[in-house]
Amino acid sequence: MGSTSAAHPAPAGAASTRAAETAAMRRALELAARGPRRGINPRVGCVLLSPGGEVIAEGWHRGAGTPHAEVDALARLEPGAARGATAIVTLEPCNHTGRTGPCSEALIAAGVARVVYAVDDPGVHSAGGGRRLADAGVDVEQGLLADEAEALIGDWLFAERHGRPFVTVKWASTLDGRIAAADGTSRWITGPEARADVHVRRAAADAIAVGTGTVLADDPALTARDADGGLRADQPVPVVFGRRELPDDAAVLHGPHPALRHDGTDLVGDLRELQRSGIRSLFVEGGPTLATAFLAAGLADEVVVYLAPALLGGPRLAVGDLGIGTIAEALRLETTHVARLGDDLLVVARPASARPGAADAPNGRT
Amino acid sequence: MGSTSAAHPAPAGAASTRAAETAAMRRALELAARGPRRGINPRVGCVLLSPGGEVIAEGWHRGAGTPHAEVDALARLEPGAARGATAIVTLEPCNHTGRTGPCSEALIAAGVARVVYAVDDPGVHSAGGGRRLADAGVDVEQGLLADEAEALIGDWLFAERHGRPFVTVKWASTLDGRIAAADGTSRWITGPEARADVHVRRAAADAIAVGTGTVLADDPALTARDADGGLRADQPVPVVFGRRELPDDAAVLHGPHPALRHDGTDLVGDLRELQRSGIRSLFVEGGPTLATAFLAAGLADEVVVYLAPALLGGPRLAVGDLGIGTIAEALRLETTHVARLGDDLLVVARPASARPGAADAPNGRT
Repeated sequence: MGSTSAAHPAPAGAASTRAAETAAMRRALELAARGPRRGINPRVGCVLLSPGGEVIAEGWHRGAGTPHAEVDALARLEPGAARGATAIVTLEPCNHTGRTGPCSEALIAAGVARVVYAVDDPGVHSAGGGRRLADAGVDVEQGLLADEAEALIGDWLFAERHGRPFVTVKWASTLDGRIAAADGTSRWITGPEARADVHVRRAAADAIAVGTGTVLADDPALTARDADGGLRADQPVPVVFGRRELPDDAAVLHGPHPALRHDGTDLVGDLRELQRSGIRSLFVEGGPTLATAFLAAGLADEVVVYLAPALLGGPRLAVGDLGIGTIAEALRLETTHVARLGDDLLVVARPASARPGAADAPNGRT
Repeated sequence: MGSTSAAHPAPAGAASTRAAETAAMRRALELAARGPRRGINPRVGCVLLSPGGEVIAEGWHRGAGTPHAEVDALARLEPGAARGATAIVTLEPCNHTGRTGPCSEALIAAGVARVVYAVDDPGVHSAGGGRRLADAGVDVEQGLLADEAEALIGDWLFAERHGRPFVTVKWASTLDGRIAAADGTSRWITGPEARADVHVRRAAADAIAVGTGTVLADDPALTARDADGGLRADQPVPVVFGRRELPDDAAVLHGPHPALRHDGTDLVGDLRELQRSGIRSLFVEGGPTLATAFLAAGLADEVVVYLAPALLGGPRLAVGDLGIGTIAEALRLETTHVARLGDDLLVVARPASARPGAADAPNGRT
């Protein structure tokens, strides 16, 4: 919406107006953060300012099926009280009719004179609200505190833009790239600090993926636990890829969330389906077959590698055949983080060039 | 020689004597450092003090076939001038008749009354000089500035103690432990900073080992070069393991030093032979067959691993089969150093428990 911004800049010299709008956007970000971290919809906050710059209403989105932030704020005012007001919103007001009606229409109907929002809505169905507002004569500006808003809903934005969750492929290996000894034993390659870090990352992810091979071999619970072994408040959804039958008593089938099943033959389609169900980030825990499949398909947005100071040799590799024939085809990464965790080393890296892998197929808020 | 130290402590209250002896040992270490860094014999320095604590002569060893430090210092005095003197030596005076006669005998013959040395001579043939001196009535003390002396000749001491060079096994791999793509191409997995670090480590080693497979595949020069590509002053001796014939124009055969050949069927014997020819440290550069052989035999005292932020998958592994069947047999390491070198990661580690691998078979100075 840079074009509308250029067409309708903030009034020159209106330093106090700008200060009030910036303060309102910071407040809107605080309000947004009250919303649920997971779900189909993003966290959005809204502050309504009077023409004089006074806060007249606040709102935020509490999850799919409840009012969007703008509507939540407008609902706190008497009819007509928003006439001439400025709406400060962390995300471009939506333009589609979901369960709650388009926010851009509600703002126009309420007589709001100016809308300032932080980041564009990338959704195919929900985007365009800024243009709709501008076409209705509303003064629209985009980009205020955009970085802060991006940081708050980065995972939702990624999922909307790419039509799939952000995928992290994680493994723990020895320095020579082995995840187990020849007989399959692997407890414990890495130490307690590395394992604790895994649980923090599990809790931060919307879902955890494993292959049926790993379920059958290791029977992981895939829960996120704290140092005492207790369940963390945030539990990811377990997703099991593969066609093999799982025993009824598999731990993954008896966790805090029902396990989702995908046969893994169409990872792009599977990921799109996960995104449509509100999964914005997927933590691929293994085993090597699944990790290799995601990597080979160009569907890994991040790798998280724990390297133990040990050597194993042998056939149990963290990463299998990626279909790379010659060095020029190497999957080059950019290291974003290196840390020593106890005796182990943590390396976090992302593909050197963005390779979303899935055709853009955004959905939109509901 | 702790027993002689306990039997003959420095005179109580002789603080000025102790200060003079400590200063003389520091000077002896400086003199020792003038000697050649490489060769069969260690660097040794000697300072002779009068009974009053004045420096009356200095000496150091200039390499095999030249006088040992003690003899070098005594030779600078008139006959009889060392009577009652104190000899400050960085290494226990030798006890064998090499090309230059035993130093302990020379000190006794010169009438030296007291000998202070820093570290014991671990050599089977050369050790025992301290005992011999004590038996002849000389006041002997061991351990003054021992850590500094150990640091100066640590590689020689290791080789003497273990009857083989200190072995470093180095490789450069992707994060998933691959050293090349499926077609064998590998230039460049790591970046210029990592490659420069390799050259510094090559220059620090007495010898570099490669397998014939690497010579045939890559034709490495195995020289240590500076940033401009020029030869460094210190060049390691190339050692080629394996039975395959090498082409006459192989670069390794035309470097600063003649290449040594070993068939690699008896690594322990080969290492002993290298140590006898004055090689104290061996930098094993590859390929994976040779690296794996040294690791599997427990003959790696250090691993130096450069990890590139890339993934390759496929069959070209840095480390092959180590004969490890189950996780309890993992070759556990202790990380001694981690650094980021450009985009790459350097990990230096040593076996968690000392495993010299070769039966102790020290030789002794000549």
